[in-house]
Amino acid sequence: MDELTTIGAMRTWSRAQRAAGRTIAFVPTMGALHEGHLSLVRQARAAADRVVVSIYVNPTQFDNPDDLAKYPQTLAEDQAKLAAAGVDAVFLPTTEQMYPNGYCTFIEIVGPLTDKLCAIARPGHFRGVATVVIKLFHAVEPDVAVFGQKDLQQVMIVNRMVNDLDLPIRVLVGPTMREADGLAMSSRNRRLDAGMRERALSLPRGLERARLAYGQGLSDAMKLCEAVYDECLQHEGVEVDYVEVVSLKGFTTAETADDACVLAAAILVDGVRLIDHVALAGTVLPVPLDD
Amino acid sequence: MDELTTIGAMRTWSRAQRAAGRTIAFVPTMGALHEGHLSLVRQARAAADRVVVSIYVNPTQFDNPDDLAKYPQTLAEDQAKLAAAGVDAVFLPTTEQMYPNGYCTFIEIVGPLTDKLCAIARPGHFRGVATVVIKLFHAVEPDVAVFGQKDLQQVMIVNRMVNDLDLPIRVLVGPTMREADGLAMSSRNRRLDAGMRERALSLPRGLERARLAYGQGLSDAMKLCEAVYDECLQHEGVEVDYVEVVSLKGFTTAETADDACVLAAAILVDGVRLIDHVALAGTVLPVPLDD
Repeated sequence: MDELTTIGAMRTWSRAQRAAGRTIAFVPTMGALHEGHLSLVRQARAAADRVVVSIYVNPTQFDNPDDLAKYPQTLAEDQAKLAAAGVDAVFLPTTEQMYPNGYCTFIEIVGPLTDKLCAIARPGHFRGVATVVIKLFHAVEPDVAVFGQKDLQQVMIVNRMVNDLDLPIRVLVGPTMREADGLAMSSRNRRLDAGMRERALSLPRGLERARLAYGQGLSDAMKLCEAVYDECLQHEGVEVDYVEVVSLKGFTTAETADDACVLAAAILVDGVRLIDHVALAGTVLPVPLDD
Repeated sequence: MDELTTIGAMRTWSRAQRAAGRTIAFVPTMGALHEGHLSLVRQARAAADRVVVSIYVNPTQFDNPDDLAKYPQTLAEDQAKLAAAGVDAVFLPTTEQMYPNGYCTFIEIVGPLTDKLCAIARPGHFRGVATVVIKLFHAVEPDVAVFGQKDLQQVMIVNRMVNDLDLPIRVLVGPTMREADGLAMSSRNRRLDAGMRERALSLPRGLERARLAYGQGLSDAMKLCEAVYDECLQHEGVEVDYVEVVSLKGFTTAETADDACVLAAAILVDGVRLIDHVALAGTVLPVPLDD
């Protein structure tokens, strides 16, 4: 596995692959890799001749410096996992290089994609995500990029940016991977001790309860959201940031749910922020997502 | 000369050139071509094997719908000029394709580059410029792009965006071309009748007066600006939008001018907006411009 630490070296590597007639799939990550990331790597391997993974904890997407400081970093383990997964190159840029002094250019997405859900509690978060993703795309120049569906709003935004800015990249979405107990895999799960973990399960449990209720004919969005509040707020130290029924047609908030809707929620367990969602019709979301 | 009207066709054309080992220089324009544009085309021809020129009147950079409606459009003449200048391909995208329904992604440049000069009177203008330029860059994928120095703030912003977003493109700047009487060439000059034209000359005259005064030892920015106000405000129907001494080191407003400074101004002549600037040290600006 090749290791590339500069934007120039990364681009040279990619262009050599392209010159040799090979296609490139790219999986951007912030490290602290888990089975969810590795499933995206497998999807990337199936989609192109070469796979590049980036590991970069992007400061511009952290609205909260404390959250950035506490973000888990496990580089040596991550590299071993990627090598074992057959990744061809890992890209490890530095912040000095990504955001040199005087840096002042950002990608802004306006409208329904950034006026709700995580955009409310995390101002500037998606601006930081979109900005680092386009920078990584310009460095790696992939044919395909793979993102996890767990970060639904993020992948909708990236897909929108790719379309709007005419990037010659196909965005693929990998399904949310879950632990045996149902918790959606997340690097942040490392910050949960056994007791927090037990309480965190109220999130997938509430979402699943709502999905079953929708299957039995309940379409009132407020009542569907209540199932999540009910499950989560039974537990001390659990706060609900949002619960919302969102239609993937236009990413609008729905008062009455239909099969194009997801139920999305964010909670804090003793201050650790966790997000998850379910497609109410129970099916895997269309890829690329509707815009 | 090839004519390409879709983003896909443009990219296919460029990739075929690259595959054949040829480099590409790109000159984005809004049409209404004059000798200033053609000088950029000549610079482009000297810088790469193939030259692409785009003609697209970009609606997102017009803060004023009336200004957009009145922007001169002379497509047949433009095409003839480009063919005669040896341009290899002209890119003519449509607005339906550039900004389809639901379009919501924009490039924002924050800080000194967008807090002064034209950014004040034209909110959203540079956001629109940066956005269309990155879209055109993604379609054309040039090695080199050439911009006119007359639009100084624009070229500084584009250069900054290219650096910040790691675009693999070299930005070249062509010097301001002037009519025999000293007026900076601009597509907007077509909207000046003989009387307006005469009054418009107060702008280069004022700038030149200030430059000479600087050469004789005057460095007080306010006094240098006064030379422009004095020249312009003698004429009825001439309004001054701004006159400002700006250091190209950091693009900050200077109270005391030095050799790194330009004197930049915008005026309206019977409502037609004209901009111009002089480098106080009289030399051609460094390329790429300082950031």
